Amino acid sequence: MTDKMVIDHVGIATDDLDDLSELYTELFGAEIAHTETFDGMNVEFLAVGDAYFELLEPLESTGAIASYLDGNGPGLHHVAVATDDIEAALAGAAEMGVDLIDEEPREGAWGHDVAFLHPKSTGGILFEFVEH
Amino acid sequence: MTDKMVIDHVGIATDDLDDLSELYTELFGAEIAHTETFDGMNVEFLAVGDAYFELLEPLESTGAIASYLDGNGPGLHHVAVATDDIEAALAGAAEMGVDLIDEEPREGAWGHDVAFLHPKSTGGILFEFVEH
Repeated sequence: MTDKMVIDHVGIATDDLDDLSELYTELFGAEIAHTETFDGMNVEFLAVGDAYFELLEPLESTGAIASYLDGNGPGLHHVAVATDDIEAALAGAAEMGVDLIDEEPREGAWGHDVAFLHPKSTGGILFEFVEH
Repeated sequence: MTDKMVIDHVGIATDDLDDLSELYTELFGAEIAHTETFDGMNVEFLAVGDAYFELLEPLESTGAIASYLDGNGPGLHHVAVATDDIEAALAGAAEMGVDLIDEEPREGAWGHDVAFLHPKSTGGILFEFVEH
């Protein structure tokens, strides 16, 4: 990889986004960077230094985050690594034998291109590549 | 909080540190920043941009990470937020009613001062304050 990657955000599943946002704002001096409704969820990016907490609150009883909350309760959902070239990052991952959830980048929250890797290939962690 | 906090690292429980280190080095261009044996674990900090993955592999069958692996399997364990004043950060958290696992900072890996917050107070996430 010649690409310089950085830890971009930690995705957090919550059933009370407003409450958690207020807590992290006070506890960590986090600042609201972006808020939207995306894919049946309230989504908020909270900046802490150069990285973010991405709070994800489902508005419907179906979908990945709603299922996660049902199975695990609120908590850490995924870790996103930013790249300048998501196509190259995905191709590199595939070449290494990492199982891709998304074979091609798709539009994620905040208008970013995103693609997820399967946790069984990456030490039990759901990773996301993100290109801003 | 006047303190400028940043997301410092994501702690990852693993039963095969060397394998995961090699994978993340190739997948994310991560660089080994620090390795040590600490508190009955192999610990490695992998730099990705200005933040780290902290890989934690127990050498004994007891302890927090061994228990975590038994109950959950490998994966995301905690998120650490760096502060310039961990005493003030802890005092602020206590004042907000957040349950502290560590009432006082203690020595963590890499010689850093650390203190953990109880996940039941923080949206289901085990947070660590760390002062370098």
